[in-house]
Amino acid sequence: MLDEVYTAVATPNIALVKYWGKRNDELILPHNTSISITLDETFKTTTSVAFSGKLDRDIFFINGEEQNLDSHEVKERFKVVDEMRRMAGSAEHAVVYSVNSFPTAAGLASSASGISALVFATSKALGLDIGTSRLSIIARQGSGSACRSLMGGFVKWKKGEKDDGSDSYIEQIKGNGYWPDIVAFVAIVSEAKKKVSSRAGMKQTVETSKLYRERPNVAEEHAKELEKAIMEKDFPTLARITMEESNSMHAVMLDTFPPIIYLNDISKEIIHAVHELNSGGNIAAYTFDAGPNAVVVTTEKNKGDVYNALNSIGGIKDIVELKIGSGPRIADRQYEAEINAIIEKNR
Amino acid sequence: MLDEVYTAVATPNIALVKYWGKRNDELILPHNTSISITLDETFKTTTSVAFSGKLDRDIFFINGEEQNLDSHEVKERFKVVDEMRRMAGSAEHAVVYSVNSFPTAAGLASSASGISALVFATSKALGLDIGTSRLSIIARQGSGSACRSLMGGFVKWKKGEKDDGSDSYIEQIKGNGYWPDIVAFVAIVSEAKKKVSSRAGMKQTVETSKLYRERPNVAEEHAKELEKAIMEKDFPTLARITMEESNSMHAVMLDTFPPIIYLNDISKEIIHAVHELNSGGNIAAYTFDAGPNAVVVTTEKNKGDVYNALNSIGGIKDIVELKIGSGPRIADRQYEAEINAIIEKNR
Repeated sequence: MLDEVYTAVATPNIALVKYWGKRNDELILPHNTSISITLDETFKTTTSVAFSGKLDRDIFFINGEEQNLDSHEVKERFKVVDEMRRMAGSAEHAVVYSVNSFPTAAGLASSASGISALVFATSKALGLDIGTSRLSIIARQGSGSACRSLMGGFVKWKKGEKDDGSDSYIEQIKGNGYWPDIVAFVAIVSEAKKKVSSRAGMKQTVETSKLYRERPNVAEEHAKELEKAIMEKDFPTLARITMEESNSMHAVMLDTFPPIIYLNDISKEIIHAVHELNSGGNIAAYTFDAGPNAVVVTTEKNKGDVYNALNSIGGIKDIVELKIGSGPRIADRQYEAEINAIIEKNR
Repeated sequence: MLDEVYTAVATPNIALVKYWGKRNDELILPHNTSISITLDETFKTTTSVAFSGKLDRDIFFINGEEQNLDSHEVKERFKVVDEMRRMAGSAEHAVVYSVNSFPTAAGLASSASGISALVFATSKALGLDIGTSRLSIIARQGSGSACRSLMGGFVKWKKGEKDDGSDSYIEQIKGNGYWPDIVAFVAIVSEAKKKVSSRAGMKQTVETSKLYRERPNVAEEHAKELEKAIMEKDFPTLARITMEESNSMHAVMLDTFPPIIYLNDISKEIIHAVHELNSGGNIAAYTFDAGPNAVVVTTEKNKGDVYNALNSIGGIKDIVELKIGSGPRIADRQYEAEINAIIEKNR
């Protein structure tokens, strides 16, 4: 008899109020609340999971390639499976088969959609009946910002106050249908893999940046202001806070020793182009994560102008238009043949 | 009879602990103490001044070209002449003839050497018998950082506490003979004029950067640490603070809204190259002002390696080696013929 396969689809999120720095490295507890929008399925990870008594080890495939579960990065991310297996009281090993469908490589990080899909599919495969806030606490421990991809629309990851992290989970501010006018362009500047991992980089920032002493206060203020702007559908304020947050995070990165500099001359051109577009009032906002690629947020009315401005900048390799997405979902089972072949081969 | 001409020579300074932000825009009082080294006469301004009863207006030449004294920038800088004329009780108008001898244009700002030479020559021309700390209070009101060029060696500009600025003046930490081992390379990346003036830029930073709330505290800590490192001739610590200060200032510039970004991809390469050189301990330090050009500070022992590392970076137009200088001096009278011709023409 075949082992049962569960499949989930999840998407990246892009932070408008940024997460950069942990108050607890082990539990992945952030120094500040962050707010993101979950993107639609233009970029997505599809992950199938099966638990089987026939295996004596976990097996993890990404894009058809088996991953080394002893590698630090994979082990950290796979912790979420151990945690849920413990919760379910299961002793069976898992096959995880994950496929990233990202039109351009490294345009957006696949870790958030990957971990979110993994957590979602695994909870179904193990028959765990737990809510999203609890799931987000598990996902958070795989990779902090991943937890925000467990819901659609505008999502807040609360920093929490408790030492055990039980109050550091996500809440949906508004769903993806609330403000359909919002458009996000991903401007792909470089496909190169980032030199400094986010995990290592933010640790260095917390340890060495002296301006970081003020950063959590700034982010908490911005989170409150942004939540209000979302509730009031106040795009100019949303845009201002989004840009200030991107700049604030890249400022503390630059203030890290040695400095972490992700923005390059093309990123600078994008920043200047957006401020030029905004000279008569904010119609667009840039935001950058741990790389030179920009996400430019605007509205349907202005998206033509914004696209044209981006398109006139030399050095941008691709511009992809996205909308706000609805969050992860259970899909028809996929990669069933691949998973069963893996189990047969490894039993 | 010819009017008497007085001539002074002054040089730029480069801040190791940075000045970026005023607590009083009118008096030019800084939010924090800064520390600089005054450079040698490789780059210098030579300024001759004569006061004459034959003129009915002030006349100001830079590099042979008459300046418009109604322009905002020139007027601000010329305030120092008015101030000293008031102190001397003189009613005569001045001819100022100033020549910048900078091997490469815009490699370093000429405002500090220019104002410093102007203040020095004018005080002599007016027969004012005032000390350097008092002179620095006058120079400060022409352009903040200029006051640090009124002494040689390692110079501290105290932020002061008083509202009238009477305790915000310079002090020499050590003269130019104290640590002759120090070498400074100026790496010229761009000769383009900066888009945002320092004056306007730092005002925007103080008004809009939220991380700036912590910046004065950081700079005060760095100033204390750096003064100690100078007293102990502790180069690795001097280098670390110098780099942290440059990064801290450029971080609050980036955190300004809209952001001020002076560093470019070549500046980034210089930063990375210096950290590479420092992998076994700090032997060099970069520092950037309001532009992409770097000053890289090192010592005689390591200057060959540092030069070679800089020289291998494409996009650097010129590398100039300097030592710490001795500060401004009164020189043999120069441009006497030019000044008397100007007086004759305008009487």
